[in-house]
Amino acid sequence: MFNKRMQTLGAERSVIRELFEYANARKAEIGADKVFDFSIGNPCAPAPQLEGELIRILRETPPSALHGYTSAPGLWEARQAIAGHIRAALGGPADPALVYLTCGAAASLAVILAALLQRGEECVVFAPYFPEYRVFVENAGGKLVVAPTTERFRPDLAALEGLLTPKTRAVLVNSPNNPTGAVYTEGELRALAALLQKKSGQYGAPIYLLSDEPYRELFYGQRPPYLPRLYKNTVVLYSWSKSLSLAGERIGYISVSPECENAQTLFDSVCGAGRSLGYVCAPALFQRLVSRFAGETADLTLYRENRARLYAALTQMGYECAPPEGAFYLFIKSLEPSASAFCARAKKYELLLVPSESFGVGGYARLSYCVPRAVVEGSLPAFSALLGEYRK
Amino acid sequence: MFNKRMQTLGAERSVIRELFEYANARKAEIGADKVFDFSIGNPCAPAPQLEGELIRILRETPPSALHGYTSAPGLWEARQAIAGHIRAALGGPADPALVYLTCGAAASLAVILAALLQRGEECVVFAPYFPEYRVFVENAGGKLVVAPTTERFRPDLAALEGLLTPKTRAVLVNSPNNPTGAVYTEGELRALAALLQKKSGQYGAPIYLLSDEPYRELFYGQRPPYLPRLYKNTVVLYSWSKSLSLAGERIGYISVSPECENAQTLFDSVCGAGRSLGYVCAPALFQRLVSRFAGETADLTLYRENRARLYAALTQMGYECAPPEGAFYLFIKSLEPSASAFCARAKKYELLLVPSESFGVGGYARLSYCVPRAVVEGSLPAFSALLGEYRK
Repeated sequence: MFNKRMQTLGAERSVIRELFEYANARKAEIGADKVFDFSIGNPCAPAPQLEGELIRILRETPPSALHGYTSAPGLWEARQAIAGHIRAALGGPADPALVYLTCGAAASLAVILAALLQRGEECVVFAPYFPEYRVFVENAGGKLVVAPTTERFRPDLAALEGLLTPKTRAVLVNSPNNPTGAVYTEGELRALAALLQKKSGQYGAPIYLLSDEPYRELFYGQRPPYLPRLYKNTVVLYSWSKSLSLAGERIGYISVSPECENAQTLFDSVCGAGRSLGYVCAPALFQRLVSRFAGETADLTLYRENRARLYAALTQMGYECAPPEGAFYLFIKSLEPSASAFCARAKKYELLLVPSESFGVGGYARLSYCVPRAVVEGSLPAFSALLGEYRK
Repeated sequence: MFNKRMQTLGAERSVIRELFEYANARKAEIGADKVFDFSIGNPCAPAPQLEGELIRILRETPPSALHGYTSAPGLWEARQAIAGHIRAALGGPADPALVYLTCGAAASLAVILAALLQRGEECVVFAPYFPEYRVFVENAGGKLVVAPTTERFRPDLAALEGLLTPKTRAVLVNSPNNPTGAVYTEGELRALAALLQKKSGQYGAPIYLLSDEPYRELFYGQRPPYLPRLYKNTVVLYSWSKSLSLAGERIGYISVSPECENAQTLFDSVCGAGRSLGYVCAPALFQRLVSRFAGETADLTLYRENRARLYAALTQMGYECAPPEGAFYLFIKSLEPSASAFCARAKKYELLLVPSESFGVGGYARLSYCVPRAVVEGSLPAFSALLGEYRK
């Protein structure tokens, strides 16, 4: 009747969004304080500096200049601020002329994949992976190839090597990782870069590395290495959703490394893909805001504290979980073979967890701990009761 | 190398955006007051009520609630406000559960076309037409079919009938029209509806009417009829870019008429298409704003005055042009056969006009008069000098 793929995507919804809708309905029903919603990454770390600056921008800028169309890749001042931050703080290559502002991380992904992939070409991701990767790769007419990870979710390069083919156009990595919290080390990434370099040479065409970095600033041990420093054919995808708690405002960017082969042509394709998918420009007011806060973050103490508290309390109870190195997720072992059945049982205790099948692996549940501290504290008796049910 | 279609779309750019970039560069070079930029519809009618309300929303709402993800189709309060406005002010059918907020008109178009079209299905538009229609139809894997208009750009229904086939899934209309300023009469639209009804019956499948209405409130004679009142299988695409001068903020909606055949399935497809194209939600702050201003407009007096002044002055000089009934465009006859050559010549006088070839017809130039009054006044000697060059 209508487009079948879209109809299915719409009727099924993402499991995460489905839980998000359920959580909102359930909170309205029994009270927000009684629902322990660990479902979606809706960040709540305070960024008090933003509201004042938004008001200042609204007061200082003539509305017709403020709210008008910007250039499609974004305001030059925003592109300069981003490239400047990458060079100064991350020590990486960047060129404002190769920076393209987007309506958030999902748009960054949809646009770069549409720009890069020709029909039937492949993009490799490591499992577990953010489920919308598949949606965006398939929207671009490409094929998602899933590579395994080793214990504790490290990239399995031997397995990856066996999956690379002349059709591989890109490898997409996400470190700090959603859903596992893994942060790839410089050694792991250098080995990945060497493999891609070797295979690119062998196939006579570059394999691009797409670095999805919405959690760049969220690390609890070593700082995540900046990938364009290690591999020249890298495109960075960023969003301020997590770092500035602006998830609903849809503001992020694509930075094509100036060291990429055919960087300008790739950037042209990014502009073309943005146009084709209906992105005229990123929201203008928030372009101005991030021009002033390109490298700043909200106060991330909350996530640090939630991580420490939840990890300690849950492992002490008896849950199994690798200590997260970054992002704001715990990826705990399911207490029964089916993660979906486990999460369904958790729901009875008003604990909203995302089953790992949606991330391409079985046996785990994802907790998003970017929540108020009270949710963490309130949830602990429920986690204990849930565990008790399995020990009966 | 990369996706060829995207590469071409990005390298070529839209003629309108190209002129917009040229205008900005030229203004920086010789001074903004010396460039008469009639290229893009970057609206500047004042909407003083907005800035105060934005500040109020920023002050009153806790930031984590304000800037967080909303439900994918939008905040319920915004969807209710929109459906309420459609019912009360436009007298048309609407259901908040079938309203989907978008990142502006381009997103509304890209999403509904991706939702509706299966590969190879056809969407008909009337020439001249907004050039991005082709981009969005082709992005959806569909085929754009161009129907002619009669004198003064009225829909040519006899010609349309000859172009409808069992592959026709949609007819896309835009009234008030970009670029001609035509507003279709109730009689014309009833005849169109009757034709689509007849052909839908003949083919055994509905032909949907897509009504692209970013200029809904911009009319200078009769009010544009609200299409879902005349044809049940109508989907309305709206944006506040023009009515509230918010073009850069990317906020609009899709309203699937509850009288549509398979309305819920179509709405599911809309949600799926939004997901697939990378639209997570419309910008949250502006969702809240439009909840409070669903049916309001900026002070549109400026456009009324610019229209009267430009139309009178240009036709008095000797330019030929139909009096625009709506939107904020004059579509003047080119003074030589090639509209591109004419617009290139106009550029020498710092007059930035869009040649009509980009709209699928030859022989005209589009002036966007949503500009400060000073631009209109300043441009008149330049228009006179341009005409003089042809009369030498």
